[in-house]
Amino acid sequence: MTTDEEHVEAMKKLKTEQREKRLASKKLDRGLILVHTGNGKGKSSSAFGVIVRALGWGHQVGLVQYIKGTWKTGERNFFDQFRDSLTWHTMGEGFTWETQDRQRDIEAAKAALKTSAELLQSGDFDLVVLDEINIVLRYDYLAMEEVLDVLASRADRTSVILTGRDARPELIEAADLVTEMKEIKHPYQQGIKAKQGIDF
Amino acid sequence: MTTDEEHVEAMKKLKTEQREKRLASKKLDRGLILVHTGNGKGKSSSAFGVIVRALGWGHQVGLVQYIKGTWKTGERNFFDQFRDSLTWHTMGEGFTWETQDRQRDIEAAKAALKTSAELLQSGDFDLVVLDEINIVLRYDYLAMEEVLDVLASRADRTSVILTGRDARPELIEAADLVTEMKEIKHPYQQGIKAKQGIDF
Repeated sequence: MTTDEEHVEAMKKLKTEQREKRLASKKLDRGLILVHTGNGKGKSSSAFGVIVRALGWGHQVGLVQYIKGTWKTGERNFFDQFRDSLTWHTMGEGFTWETQDRQRDIEAAKAALKTSAELLQSGDFDLVVLDEINIVLRYDYLAMEEVLDVLASRADRTSVILTGRDARPELIEAADLVTEMKEIKHPYQQGIKAKQGIDF
Repeated sequence: MTTDEEHVEAMKKLKTEQREKRLASKKLDRGLILVHTGNGKGKSSSAFGVIVRALGWGHQVGLVQYIKGTWKTGERNFFDQFRDSLTWHTMGEGFTWETQDRQRDIEAAKAALKTSAELLQSGDFDLVVLDEINIVLRYDYLAMEEVLDVLASRADRTSVILTGRDARPELIEAADLVTEMKEIKHPYQQGIKAKQGIDF
């Protein structure tokens, strides 16, 4: 290892230690990091539920959708009434489940993280939801390190919910609350079609 | 076994068969039975989420709370704005976690089930949420059979969500969709206090 490389390693280690210290200092009296993961339903809808609770207290809520189209007509119609308290960014324009353009998706993910960082650092929000960010992390469109840095840099008052299946172990480690939504039984297994007001 | 007892048994069997037939006939094109169970957070908040989705479609929603106090200030404040579309019954006046009066609790549970049956059978609702009914079933304050009868008797258009930990196997069997919310990590384990807008 050259001295340059050693220096880079040492700086990295220092940075990680500083971030862990910042995260730890936030733990007792500050906004929480919540993760909703698992293969079952309810990851995003329980995030809507927490948004409802926050809006009920007159809180300011930010939402960044990392994948386009995961919020359905029902909830979009509904939350449209609350744009005064709910700042909503649909990013990941390019990222759909059928995307062919990895580079474009990576750029969309980076833009979404930049927006997320602005919301989280602004101090204007009680709650920020990073919807489906776990998917983007799973495909390595964002580095886990960068996301952890953004979480650590958030304003004291701001809680954050990260959703999506296959949450990374490093995120679970950094989180205060982690719930796995586990599919026990699903109607599509029985040939039942998606239902308005339930599934979309 | 006397002839009377035989007759009772035969009638019971016939009734069960008829109920199963009614439940099965509902499965393909009718309202669904959804169960949110498990020891993690998100059972009720993802029910709020589905309520949000349904309200976004202009649907009519009914809610029966089997345990008083499980809906917190945040969501009560919020949903109070939607009383035109959301019919809300807080039953289980007597049922708190510290109750000493089993007989009073049983009566409250029976009254809640009666109200639930009225909402489910009326045909006026797209969605009815029976919040924390699993707790009441777990303590045998209601017979599983009675609850299954009520579910089978619901109007075709009506979906129903049943929440609470420890859902009974018979309910899971009857349900179309079952999600287990599993606690992976909880902030109270780390001495963090409940937070406005997140926990209440």
